[in-house]
Amino acid sequence: MNIPRSSYPRIVIIGGGFGGISLARRLHKKEVQVVLLDKNNYHTFQPLLYQVSTGGLEPDSIAYPLRKVLIGYENFYFRMAEVQEILPEKKMITTNIGVLSYDYLVVATGSETNYYGNDELEKYAMAMKSIPQSLNLRSLILENFEQALLTDEYHERDALMNFVIVGGGPTGVELAGALAEIKKGILPKDYPDLDTRRAQINILQSGDRILNAMSVQASKKAEDFLEDLGVQVWKDVRVLGYNGKTVRTQTDLTFDTATVIWAAGVKGANIKGLDAEQFLARGNRLRVNAHNQVEHYPEIFAIGDIACMQSDAYPGGHPMMAQPAMQQGRHLADNLERLIAGKPLAPFRYKDKGSMATIGRNKAVCDLKRFRFQGVFAWFVWMFVHLFFLIGFRNRVVVFVNWVYNYVRFDREARLIIRPYQRNYDQFRD
Amino acid sequence: MNIPRSSYPRIVIIGGGFGGISLARRLHKKEVQVVLLDKNNYHTFQPLLYQVSTGGLEPDSIAYPLRKVLIGYENFYFRMAEVQEILPEKKMITTNIGVLSYDYLVVATGSETNYYGNDELEKYAMAMKSIPQSLNLRSLILENFEQALLTDEYHERDALMNFVIVGGGPTGVELAGALAEIKKGILPKDYPDLDTRRAQINILQSGDRILNAMSVQASKKAEDFLEDLGVQVWKDVRVLGYNGKTVRTQTDLTFDTATVIWAAGVKGANIKGLDAEQFLARGNRLRVNAHNQVEHYPEIFAIGDIACMQSDAYPGGHPMMAQPAMQQGRHLADNLERLIAGKPLAPFRYKDKGSMATIGRNKAVCDLKRFRFQGVFAWFVWMFVHLFFLIGFRNRVVVFVNWVYNYVRFDREARLIIRPYQRNYDQFRD
Repeated sequence: MNIPRSSYPRIVIIGGGFGGISLARRLHKKEVQVVLLDKNNYHTFQPLLYQVSTGGLEPDSIAYPLRKVLIGYENFYFRMAEVQEILPEKKMITTNIGVLSYDYLVVATGSETNYYGNDELEKYAMAMKSIPQSLNLRSLILENFEQALLTDEYHERDALMNFVIVGGGPTGVELAGALAEIKKGILPKDYPDLDTRRAQINILQSGDRILNAMSVQASKKAEDFLEDLGVQVWKDVRVLGYNGKTVRTQTDLTFDTATVIWAAGVKGANIKGLDAEQFLARGNRLRVNAHNQVEHYPEIFAIGDIACMQSDAYPGGHPMMAQPAMQQGRHLADNLERLIAGKPLAPFRYKDKGSMATIGRNKAVCDLKRFRFQGVFAWFVWMFVHLFFLIGFRNRVVVFVNWVYNYVRFDREARLIIRPYQRNYDQFRD
Repeated sequence: MNIPRSSYPRIVIIGGGFGGISLARRLHKKEVQVVLLDKNNYHTFQPLLYQVSTGGLEPDSIAYPLRKVLIGYENFYFRMAEVQEILPEKKMITTNIGVLSYDYLVVATGSETNYYGNDELEKYAMAMKSIPQSLNLRSLILENFEQALLTDEYHERDALMNFVIVGGGPTGVELAGALAEIKKGILPKDYPDLDTRRAQINILQSGDRILNAMSVQASKKAEDFLEDLGVQVWKDVRVLGYNGKTVRTQTDLTFDTATVIWAAGVKGANIKGLDAEQFLARGNRLRVNAHNQVEHYPEIFAIGDIACMQSDAYPGGHPMMAQPAMQQGRHLADNLERLIAGKPLAPFRYKDKGSMATIGRNKAVCDLKRFRFQGVFAWFVWMFVHLFFLIGFRNRVVVFVNWVYNYVRFDREARLIIRPYQRNYDQFRD
């Protein structure tokens, strides 16, 4: 990679997510050279992917050009590249566009969908971790209804209109709520010649409550909200497999469906070279110390979802969310400055700002440090917080316009099949 | 296709473009059954595709769900289908989702890119007639610059930053202007480590002036505007071929480039069954009489780009633009009502509202019936007219927000490679 050496030490950041961007921004004007690598040329605002899948937002409004993040930063370089391997002994990485040496390396690769080794699920279930995946899901949902119009076969039509979401975390809950609102507000008008009352939205949770990282009060209220919207909530149900036609569970319960959305787990998006057992914590995450340093290599750091920093307060590491990533990014920028100056590093301390999830219009749940609340106010707080953390002024305005429009008109206009998802409906039928 | 027969005659419309939509809307509340078919589930506002290609607008803001157009219309059906053949003797059509009978058939299939039989151009040049094509072009433009960073080979880098637009009609001119503004406003900031001054935008016109469907005054001013922006305008240059590396012309002039955009011609998007010589006028268009009726088949009509209605005023048919399509659509709705009532049909008369093209910020040319003007005011008129004809309130607001943002900030934020375009750069190099 033809990046000129400067007199400053070179920090290579792998990944332009919340962690990578927060780190890069904070490194601006420090005496370092920064190389940011990402396989995409844009940052993805993952918390709103479900709204892309359900036609509420256009994909371009939750993406932000990574080059624009670095505009005006001197001695900063961006390269669109996929990192293939880390060679810690040589202080080098290999990528699809060449090799690159580093003085300090920051792994901020985030997480990816975890199918827990189930190949069948990986093959047939839809994931929702990236914009292209979300657009595939958007296309598939719409294609299913177009397809449902074409069949006279009762059972097949029901399966096409049956959505099974596996995983009762925020992603699953938010998607289920959005689908339920589509069922209620859009389907009857868009498909007058289809009995869309028969459409079903099921959410399957392996544990005994949804949103189990939140308070019991939030779980309970979220479940009420979902049921108000007509979502079927199934608890203590573990999915064993899905063959493209039928979801099998640990009980007798099965679901005939054309669409399974897998939101039941993520794992660290690890890279060759640091993928040996010795570096890893649960969920494929890189074990780091309180300075985000990877074991054995004081010049390699990990932040965000991929990093597992175990502490008394967080024995399993921090939650895999935007907040720890951003805080670690900013903290690491200061620590790198200290390290280069030969000063002692400061330990990271996570400031939990709470968590929230939205279920539908006027329906959200918030667990803040001191307050727990649900309903309309929570929903406004949710919107405000998401607008605030969304990157880019234009994106904020466009998202805001869409939300106001969707709210006032009970509508979602981005129900477009721009690139069809090539579902094999014949296979589904056999 | 399982569409129930009603007591009203069935009108089948093929295509949800300007013509098809205008017709369908006007048929609302008339005593007919309407089946609208389109291969996409959305209407495309084609005049703004070039802004999608150049990152100024998100694709979803110039697309509109076709089902939404028909919401609340009784006895209207939409099906996402590709029509394979028209069987005029049987009054039936075959599609990828089954057969359908009609009482009246309206062909509103629009136009497609015309490579005039040049396979090499069809293979290597980019077209810009649909949203996926525009997104491919957007990806390719951005990928080229990312790629240019990776090579130390001077000639290759220049070719990657050299854009050749073939065709000096509105599409070519508007795209050239937008690319020139990107070169000026965005590239130097996004790619500080690349000498983007060497980027070139060429527009090649086979005739002796660009915008040759407009006034000489407009042509001249548009050319001045383009040259102000740094676009190289080549006139009397006919492209003979492009092998993925070099554009050959009828003279010694050649262009080494990784990107050729073909905007040099369209032809009617014809369908099997009506594609015999006897039905066709120049450019693969269906010859129709003053009632938009296709020869021999009084129950088959064609409107918009696909229709060629020859008259003294328009010996070659109407221009292939939105206006004739919309006017014919509305006119045909009334004629169909007359036909069903057994009344005589009224001939179509085109009301030319003029034409316009935009070259860049504050730079547009307008030829109205009584006035010709260029510059800032023309540019505002252009924007107002395009917002007015854009379908959907949300789309208008989002497009407006983007335009204000782009204008104030000299920016285009949708510079995103959401789905990479798989250019074979190795092939380009050999």
